Amino acid sequence: MRLEQPHRTERFGAVRIHELQRVIELDSGGQRRADQGGSHSQLVPPDAMRAVEEELVVVIPCMNETRRVIEGVLSGIPHDCLIVLVSNSARQPIDRYEIEVQSLEQFCRSAERPAMAIHQRDPGLAAAIKAAGLPELIDDEGLVRTGKGEAMLIGMAMAAMTGRRYLGYVDADNYVPGAVNEYCKAYAAGLHLASADSPYSMVRISWHSKPKLRDGRLFFSRRGRSSEVTNMFLNRLVAEYSGFGTEVIATGNAGEHALSLELGLRMRLAGGFAVEPFEYVELFEQFGGVLPAVSSQVLPHSVPVLQIETRNPHFHDNKGEDHVKGMRMQALNVLYHSPVALPAVREAILEFMVAEGALAPGQEPPRERIYPPVGALAFETFLETLSSEATSFRQVGRELARVDRHPVA
Amino acid sequence: MRLEQPHRTERFGAVRIHELQRVIELDSGGQRRADQGGSHSQLVPPDAMRAVEEELVVVIPCMNETRRVIEGVLSGIPHDCLIVLVSNSARQPIDRYEIEVQSLEQFCRSAERPAMAIHQRDPGLAAAIKAAGLPELIDDEGLVRTGKGEAMLIGMAMAAMTGRRYLGYVDADNYVPGAVNEYCKAYAAGLHLASADSPYSMVRISWHSKPKLRDGRLFFSRRGRSSEVTNMFLNRLVAEYSGFGTEVIATGNAGEHALSLELGLRMRLAGGFAVEPFEYVELFEQFGGVLPAVSSQVLPHSVPVLQIETRNPHFHDNKGEDHVKGMRMQALNVLYHSPVALPAVREAILEFMVAEGALAPGQEPPRERIYPPVGALAFETFLETLSSEATSFRQVGRELARVDRHPVA
Repeated sequence: MRLEQPHRTERFGAVRIHELQRVIELDSGGQRRADQGGSHSQLVPPDAMRAVEEELVVVIPCMNETRRVIEGVLSGIPHDCLIVLVSNSARQPIDRYEIEVQSLEQFCRSAERPAMAIHQRDPGLAAAIKAAGLPELIDDEGLVRTGKGEAMLIGMAMAAMTGRRYLGYVDADNYVPGAVNEYCKAYAAGLHLASADSPYSMVRISWHSKPKLRDGRLFFSRRGRSSEVTNMFLNRLVAEYSGFGTEVIATGNAGEHALSLELGLRMRLAGGFAVEPFEYVELFEQFGGVLPAVSSQVLPHSVPVLQIETRNPHFHDNKGEDHVKGMRMQALNVLYHSPVALPAVREAILEFMVAEGALAPGQEPPRERIYPPVGALAFETFLETLSSEATSFRQVGRELARVDRHPVA
Repeated sequence: MRLEQPHRTERFGAVRIHELQRVIELDSGGQRRADQGGSHSQLVPPDAMRAVEEELVVVIPCMNETRRVIEGVLSGIPHDCLIVLVSNSARQPIDRYEIEVQSLEQFCRSAERPAMAIHQRDPGLAAAIKAAGLPELIDDEGLVRTGKGEAMLIGMAMAAMTGRRYLGYVDADNYVPGAVNEYCKAYAAGLHLASADSPYSMVRISWHSKPKLRDGRLFFSRRGRSSEVTNMFLNRLVAEYSGFGTEVIATGNAGEHALSLELGLRMRLAGGFAVEPFEYVELFEQFGGVLPAVSSQVLPHSVPVLQIETRNPHFHDNKGEDHVKGMRMQALNVLYHSPVALPAVREAILEFMVAEGALAPGQEPPRERIYPPVGALAFETFLETLSSEATSFRQVGRELARVDRHPVA
């Protein structure tokens, strides 16, 4: 893959946010001259891509998608990546999770590759999570809470047990297998480039456009409705410290993103749709140098965040206005309550939320759930309980051996 | 890439048509065990893909597409393929061809790769074609005729001059760069597999689905309106010989297809939208063993035709009903007039066309233009005249040397 060379970087303590860089070529061929791109582009040769893919777990949070759509998504994930499906699909009246697992197993048989699957609301999973020391994730019914952040957290725990080094997320509701493929390739290229600098790296995707139906024809809109607001306030947060306005953050809500597990296992994750924007907030809190340092191990390094604009349009199901408004407000809730948000930003958020009718004047935004880092889990206990009690837990192929071999502590 | 193993093959003399095979994985990883797929799948390892891509010219026939769409298509073509743009875009009041060439040049600079471009209505191109011995292609204005088949023929002539071995076509009106990438990968995989059997090979694409707007939402339709009719009559033509009904042909109208130049340079091409279905007719006429053999060189070999169903939806501009009806009728015209079409098929075509209102009872379908094989061109003369007279002819990068080195005779 060939990427545009980013020229500007914004620093927030140890966090280095690179400006958005476009994909120039999906497949940059057999060229091996990694430095040849000069000042205009960054070329990541196939062997370097492959080396990351072999260490990459792709977690697919999934809820009630059709079999055809899931099959397409699976076909787009490069062979060397390990697939982990975390489903919160209905099990009544039809067991949709079973259908998903059957699709996954059939695909893995044809493609001769391994995979794992788990249902988010499996009581055995809840037992394993509780036993491993994360009772915050359990709701009043004694099950893992519903929510996207919660599914991603489970996926990270599963990824950690495989011993692989990288984790990427891909949403299940994507009509374009080639876009899924491009996301994974961008993860591989970005993680390769970022890992040269630091073991703590993150890659976030901004899709090229999002086609919408408007007046009976397709309109390729550049930004999602929710992203614009989230990015504006995240940039404002950064600018309050530097004293210079910035638009560097273009991926506040990025559902598609990847990171090194060295970084991921140290990060707290938020619940629900607050999860993606909170990742920025968490980086600023932990590695921004503003609050007392949490991790003395990370601070000598920088934490690069690469933002990559893909070529493919992001074609997915329209979840409607409520969904978008919910996402936007959850993002602002975590921003508002972060100790790194200076008063001017908090004030601006309040004003915006009141103007949007999301908050009565004088009210405070609600707090979102923030979970402890996944790295704190007792993985051995987790795996033991999972294997013995989680009836929805499936492993296809040979990855099991690897799970036993490299539990991450 | 990993493909489904096809189990059925239909023969028509030397022509071996393989049943449609699906793409299982877009990227089958670093595995090199080409035969490992067993009876379920065919794995084409990355080195084998690359070897074909290095010999593959990708011709993009183009007419008045927007710059953004063209940029996306270019980004999806694997680096090692050589891009040839054949444009029939308007040059008045705005010179759209110039805009296309600028996009192409800018892309090639960023991606450090070569390309060629030509305008179909360039008087210098007409002069070169005439001088090289194909006056049939010239219209009353003294220019190369408009039409898709004509653009493809020009593209083939340009491809032949590069000395590369394979040629693939990709339509310019595609909103999904990842789909373009998959077409090229399917060409590489298919040509690799087919070339093991014969130097005369063809790969034709059937897209997974074609999204359409219906009642304000997307409906993923499996087959195009025109394809169903073309395929039905092509299959009928085959079945009349074998005595067994068949549905093997699923790619009669495939705009996306690739072939070895060894085969392509021997084939006559039809004009306009008859070009794609006529390729099947031409294979049957030349290599079907029904008519007196034209080429004694080919007959000892078989001519494999692979049909590959891609994973990506085919998302393009809706050209409207007239366009589709025109395509369908042009396909039937060439079928009707082929000497390999038995009376029962000709009768069925007449009935259909009358029922559709495309023909008055008692009328004969019009004849489409059929051009002599491109291999008959005097390539040295063609290149000389092109270089000296065709002002729209552009070459980016180093491919020129190669053109000089390997003129194909």
